[in-house]
Amino acid sequence: MKIGFVGVGIMGRPMAGHLRADGHELLLVRHRSPLPADLLEAGASVRDSAAEVARDADVVILMLPDTPDVEDALFGADGVAAGLSGGKLVIDMSSIDPIATRGFAERIQALDCDYVDAPVSGGEVGARAASLTIMVGGSDAAFARAQPLLALMGKNITHIGAAGAGQITKVANQIIVALNIEAVAEALVFAAKAGADPAKVRAALMGGFAASRVLEVHGERMVKRTFDPGFRIALHQKDLGLALSGAKALGLSLPSTASTQQLFSACVAQGDGDRDHSAMVKALELLAGITL
Amino acid sequence: MKIGFVGVGIMGRPMAGHLRADGHELLLVRHRSPLPADLLEAGASVRDSAAEVARDADVVILMLPDTPDVEDALFGADGVAAGLSGGKLVIDMSSIDPIATRGFAERIQALDCDYVDAPVSGGEVGARAASLTIMVGGSDAAFARAQPLLALMGKNITHIGAAGAGQITKVANQIIVALNIEAVAEALVFAAKAGADPAKVRAALMGGFAASRVLEVHGERMVKRTFDPGFRIALHQKDLGLALSGAKALGLSLPSTASTQQLFSACVAQGDGDRDHSAMVKALELLAGITL
Repeated sequence: MKIGFVGVGIMGRPMAGHLRADGHELLLVRHRSPLPADLLEAGASVRDSAAEVARDADVVILMLPDTPDVEDALFGADGVAAGLSGGKLVIDMSSIDPIATRGFAERIQALDCDYVDAPVSGGEVGARAASLTIMVGGSDAAFARAQPLLALMGKNITHIGAAGAGQITKVANQIIVALNIEAVAEALVFAAKAGADPAKVRAALMGGFAASRVLEVHGERMVKRTFDPGFRIALHQKDLGLALSGAKALGLSLPSTASTQQLFSACVAQGDGDRDHSAMVKALELLAGITL
Repeated sequence: MKIGFVGVGIMGRPMAGHLRADGHELLLVRHRSPLPADLLEAGASVRDSAAEVARDADVVILMLPDTPDVEDALFGADGVAAGLSGGKLVIDMSSIDPIATRGFAERIQALDCDYVDAPVSGGEVGARAASLTIMVGGSDAAFARAQPLLALMGKNITHIGAAGAGQITKVANQIIVALNIEAVAEALVFAAKAGADPAKVRAALMGGFAASRVLEVHGERMVKRTFDPGFRIALHQKDLGLALSGAKALGLSLPSTASTQQLFSACVAQGDGDRDHSAMVKALELLAGITL
């Protein structure tokens, strides 16, 4: 199949590589910065614009940083929409605004094309290992078309509902992960300040109702002080921004998401925006006057 | 061994039963309300005060609701301390204030007795099944004495550190569980309000970094609307109260613990204080104008 891939950065590059390795033709958009040499060596061809990629490909996949990037790639001058013809499939694997996504899906469907939103979790490690968790929104027919390609990039692939439902699920994921990090951070800072060994406290809690992937993975990073990303605080801040702007637009209250976002802001203020999100504990340590 | 058991309520009664079933002698304090018939039928003997129980027992175990109850049972008129003689062991399995616990331990140790704090998690189900998680503070020697008795009531038994460390760990556990419940509640209410099926969102998140025992157990209760306790909101509110008063006394900031406590207060205001703590989601639903 001819697959256009827009956004071959840290995540997109290995994801596109898996598609190519399976024998698909890969079409990339020419950039000011050089395209990844491994993809070019593997035979990816290059077009001058997203519109040309969309014209020549059967499927266009996007993996971009944020909502405006996706909007521009889809609907900007020489964007994907300008090159689409009926029957093609657009898969947005970026993590962006669920409400904006519904609008993007409608505009692509108006061109007689299919649209699925398929944001991922699992980070660079998951992208390289083709083990991403993928949360999908779109019609049953669109999901059925996308599924074999998604299966080349990830493992847990769940069709949640109509267009936008993938992005909604990704936001829900990011809310839980951020608040679970804060939960573990508050608990370990409390324990340390009260005079208990946070490593022993963490180990004791792993067997009970406090058990979580975050206690396991991020709790260990806090105790061992390994804050190399992982997943950057600045990116998680973007994701909680989607949750909070979505909450405002939809009319609901997310009190802990809001306060956790403020702690991420404190981390950015301390110069820790590029550290792993488990470094949130440093903001609480600062307020407590201790280090774990 | 002769074991005095002070506090044979919902938790204490089955715990004391396991000790008796293993062949230990059981000494209880006479109450205004009748003592559990099953323990009396199993041969437990009764004394008129905690002091008399302490005088006649080798070990005294306490399982009481809150810090003042433990203080009164230990140091009130005709309390445990009044009956203790050198060499005995006091085990407080209640969930109470870690800082007060240090003071209680010092006062008991001044009587030439051992003291361990050994709060539990696992609830009534764990108490009945002798599968409680037990977090222990105390000297190595005191822990070694208590361990064989604790093993009759629980499974994951961890010696965390000096006296108070068990209570510190229990507070840390309750912080994480409460904040993880809020995390799942905010995520599912967001998803539902945005138009996705919360049951599908929950299922999709179980495989990734958002995975937790709370997403598994309490998330299911939220989706299925089964709010029978479980663990009562009013009790969890007491435990977060220990975290927040401890934080104030120790000098640290627990911003999400504080705001989650406020949500529990909203639940109590709505008449839900006796529901399972997963019913926290109802307060967020109220603010969002929806039900999952």
